Amino acid sequence: MSKGDDTRERILERAFRVASRDGLEGLSIGGLAESLAMSKSGLFAHFGSKEELQVEVLQAAARRFEDSVMRPAFRAPRGTPRIRHFLENWLHWVNSPDGAGCLFVTAAVELDDRDGRPREVVVEEQRKLQDAFARSARVAIDAGHFRKDLDCRQFAFELYALLLGYHNAKRLLREPGAEKALRSAFERLLTDAAAPS
Amino acid sequence: MSKGDDTRERILERAFRVASRDGLEGLSIGGLAESLAMSKSGLFAHFGSKEELQVEVLQAAARRFEDSVMRPAFRAPRGTPRIRHFLENWLHWVNSPDGAGCLFVTAAVELDDRDGRPREVVVEEQRKLQDAFARSARVAIDAGHFRKDLDCRQFAFELYALLLGYHNAKRLLREPGAEKALRSAFERLLTDAAAPS
Repeated sequence: MSKGDDTRERILERAFRVASRDGLEGLSIGGLAESLAMSKSGLFAHFGSKEELQVEVLQAAARRFEDSVMRPAFRAPRGTPRIRHFLENWLHWVNSPDGAGCLFVTAAVELDDRDGRPREVVVEEQRKLQDAFARSARVAIDAGHFRKDLDCRQFAFELYALLLGYHNAKRLLREPGAEKALRSAFERLLTDAAAPS
Repeated sequence: MSKGDDTRERILERAFRVASRDGLEGLSIGGLAESLAMSKSGLFAHFGSKEELQVEVLQAAARRFEDSVMRPAFRAPRGTPRIRHFLENWLHWVNSPDGAGCLFVTAAVELDDRDGRPREVVVEEQRKLQDAFARSARVAIDAGHFRKDLDCRQFAFELYALLLGYHNAKRLLREPGAEKALRSAFERLLTDAAAPS
């Protein structure tokens, strides 16, 4: 890794932490430069604009998500075990001190009305995630775990809704029962999707 | 209404619109004063701080929500019809040009990490809403529509999760099928809750 790449990584790492806490709008080139003891022009040499920085932070978060949540889940046996594995990884991710899961949920709400590249990246990543849910459901049908007439896109919509509901109950309402409620709803979703035994 | 009250209402109305579009953090006393052709000190005479303004905007939004969504739903016959009525009112509210529903969803995400009065108001209002869901489910059990062993708080959690899922699918992903997905999940929730016939 060249020194330039190294600096770039350091900036992204810091930006990721700031954005996880304060949202993408909380990122400022000036603030970042100060906290990294760099000049603003030095930082601009790496990221030409706040928007570019936001895009790169989102892409870096997406790569981490892929590595920590998605890829390990896809190593589990296909069908229901893989979907269960995903939930465990996701819970671990969203509750880790990195708090990185929040970045996408926060960004989704921050950007829903604001057209531009950062919004496109969030939409893209979220579509990828919901596509992965739908594909996993399809695979679970093929494995004989889920019933043949299951609407896989509907399954993906409901699973994603539960993740949002958990995020809200945990982060905003700080409800001690949030995880229990998520798990219980998740079991209901799986039971409803299950192939008749 | 005195002239002072009238000005106050006018400020709140404008602030509500700005916050619905840009979030609570998008509210600035300076920006509001300019768009209302008032002096900043004139505006400060009504709202002593940005935080106070945020609190009042949230409370005004909560009153509207009560009037447009909750109260009319509670005029429907108790049990399942009332819960269905709520969903229709909520969809109407969240898709109205006022876009006011978004203010609470946006505020929830904006404020989840920021302690203070605005956060308390959002938590309070959301608890009230989920309590109303749980109470309506309890009433539906008494009316013989829902099964006796239904976990009413779990029902409330899942219903709220679906509203968040819809909000996300509609506002961020701009999916034409968002409403259909919500309705389909809602029917599944009601079917699962239904008393055995």
